[in-house]
Amino acid sequence: MSLCTTTDQELSLAEILTAHHGGKLTVTPSVPLGGARDLSVAYSPGVAEVSRVIAGDATKSAQYTWAQRLVAVVSDGTAVLGLGDIGPRAALPVMEGKAALFKAFGGLNSIPLVLDTTDVDEIVQTLVRLRPSFGAVNLEDVSAPRCFELERRLVEALDCPVMHDDQHGTAIVVLAALRGACATMARELGRLRVVITGAGAAGVACAEILLAAGVADVTVLDSRGILVPGRPGMNAVKADLAERTNPRRVAGAEAEALAGADVFIGLSCATIPEELLATMAPEPMVFALSNPDPEVHPDVAGRYASIVATGRSDFPNQINNVLAFPGIFRGALDAGATRITERMKLAAADAIFAVAAEDLAVDRIVPSPFDPRVAASVASAVAQAVGE
Amino acid sequence: MSLCTTTDQELSLAEILTAHHGGKLTVTPSVPLGGARDLSVAYSPGVAEVSRVIAGDATKSAQYTWAQRLVAVVSDGTAVLGLGDIGPRAALPVMEGKAALFKAFGGLNSIPLVLDTTDVDEIVQTLVRLRPSFGAVNLEDVSAPRCFELERRLVEALDCPVMHDDQHGTAIVVLAALRGACATMARELGRLRVVITGAGAAGVACAEILLAAGVADVTVLDSRGILVPGRPGMNAVKADLAERTNPRRVAGAEAEALAGADVFIGLSCATIPEELLATMAPEPMVFALSNPDPEVHPDVAGRYASIVATGRSDFPNQINNVLAFPGIFRGALDAGATRITERMKLAAADAIFAVAAEDLAVDRIVPSPFDPRVAASVASAVAQAVGE
Repeated sequence: MSLCTTTDQELSLAEILTAHHGGKLTVTPSVPLGGARDLSVAYSPGVAEVSRVIAGDATKSAQYTWAQRLVAVVSDGTAVLGLGDIGPRAALPVMEGKAALFKAFGGLNSIPLVLDTTDVDEIVQTLVRLRPSFGAVNLEDVSAPRCFELERRLVEALDCPVMHDDQHGTAIVVLAALRGACATMARELGRLRVVITGAGAAGVACAEILLAAGVADVTVLDSRGILVPGRPGMNAVKADLAERTNPRRVAGAEAEALAGADVFIGLSCATIPEELLATMAPEPMVFALSNPDPEVHPDVAGRYASIVATGRSDFPNQINNVLAFPGIFRGALDAGATRITERMKLAAADAIFAVAAEDLAVDRIVPSPFDPRVAASVASAVAQAVGE
Repeated sequence: MSLCTTTDQELSLAEILTAHHGGKLTVTPSVPLGGARDLSVAYSPGVAEVSRVIAGDATKSAQYTWAQRLVAVVSDGTAVLGLGDIGPRAALPVMEGKAALFKAFGGLNSIPLVLDTTDVDEIVQTLVRLRPSFGAVNLEDVSAPRCFELERRLVEALDCPVMHDDQHGTAIVVLAALRGACATMARELGRLRVVITGAGAAGVACAEILLAAGVADVTVLDSRGILVPGRPGMNAVKADLAERTNPRRVAGAEAEALAGADVFIGLSCATIPEELLATMAPEPMVFALSNPDPEVHPDVAGRYASIVATGRSDFPNQINNVLAFPGIFRGALDAGATRITERMKLAAADAIFAVAAEDLAVDRIVPSPFDPRVAASVASAVAQAVGE
């Protein structure tokens, strides 16, 4: 997660630090080890038979080790929450939390691996060498635009599911929420005019999934303004995105982008002045997703918007990645997928929306993160979409 | 573990494979994650405060992550049990078992990392990059003589405890057992004439620890015979060991070595003919440690020897590494050690012996692996020896 998250006022630092003392994960044997016979079966001499079976047929490792279904949560600590490049040690509490969520929400074993290098070649090389140790890679908190190259390179190099959750987890839940909002307001997704502030990991992935889902008019802004072909100061990813978005070739900043827009999606930590919301199309939708300070306070946004979503748990319509990543990896691993494809991501968004659709309202466009149907539905939809 | 371990007759392959299905480890959150407030504390937004604290003071990662006390069980799969170079995937069941034993016997979290490279430089580089992810390295099943260089290089490169258990775990338990045997038989350790067959990981480390413990007459054999200065076919490690062992400069094979010897320690999988035992000194000690087939059957050895030990759980005096490694790593981590020194290894052997000493007999020269006093005693002794 790489939004601008810091602490809710209600939580005391002492309470938080106490909860994190000693870390947040424990590894436990899943076999009995209490007696001599247990040891003979689980370790010496019995384990030699298991090693021998795998040595004779490498595919058996999927059956007799934990690796095939183990998610490595990998980070170099370069874009941690709103804290930026604070390094692997300081990133580790986030990765432990993520690994904990994989078990709690997806029933998957997961270990955090934080890397003391920010070199893309070295990170790829390291994970290639470790490949027999895990079955999937959840990239986390890697800075843009490096994250795009790193994910692409890892997908090429590793024959297992790889996903940068800050990109695609966020994008999937945003799409699900936008479907929910459209269903609630009887609007058509493809006809929305969408503005995204932020051209980092989440912003770029949101733009991509909305394009893939058929939204024709997506405009993306970075800190220098609207992405439009030929604008100076764009990296390769932004330049490419500029070509494929902003069909009306609008130039300028937030004001130019938001005038007449149906949807605002804030993924930049920059604030949006209230008066710009007044220039949006009638009954607009405002997703102010920065944490803990949304781009515009939801109460203010509510004066203009028909639908308001945030990244916060203390307001309705929380856009929370935990709706997506546990089920996505679970489904991919259940189906033996070696990639997480665009179709699988779209299927995940549809599955989240389908759960929400059973009980839609302007303040319930996405399910609660604790809705037990979500991960199972996402996993099932993703598994079905494998190979499609 | 790299002895020649295969399966006891009593265990069926089906029983073993069933026990290993899905692997032998599970990762579980150690914090509550059942409600919105739990998520806020353990993950977003609370975790940002923990990351911020560590970003401000890197030493705090020891307090607020699991890494400082996490043992990585690392292997390249080049010397797995008696199966040899079967690769990282086939080695993983052993590493999972080892990680399980770390929790069951040492109360330590542990994760297996198997590497798809056998290049020492690359293994070192990989673990250096992963350094922020763990707090100690248990090397396992790495082939000799690469294992000696790899361990030395890792000790230099990593500021945390590193130990190749096939070397030192075995050596420590052998020394403890030899102390137990001496106490039982009223013999003096330093005056024993000791013969070790096998100049791989375990054989070399056994020779080293016996020299360090004051045994003056140690002779080591590899498959070509006795290590003696100038003998052809010795790698650098063997050549060095030849200089510092075999004080009487005996040349030849088992027959020349065993004539008049007090102690035989088999770490080679080679069989020893019964008639050679008859040539040993009066009341000899025979440690036939290869598994599942000891160098000489314990019943045969018992006709000549006053003390017989094996690596097997179904005979008395089992030389089992689990007596050492959980307590060694536990003690090192409890004390915040950055190295595992010779003194810590000797202290571990003394501690194992001290537990056995309370109830010594010719068939009880070491404690049972399930004696709950062992790991705690070893940990305490090792922690005390840190910095000595």
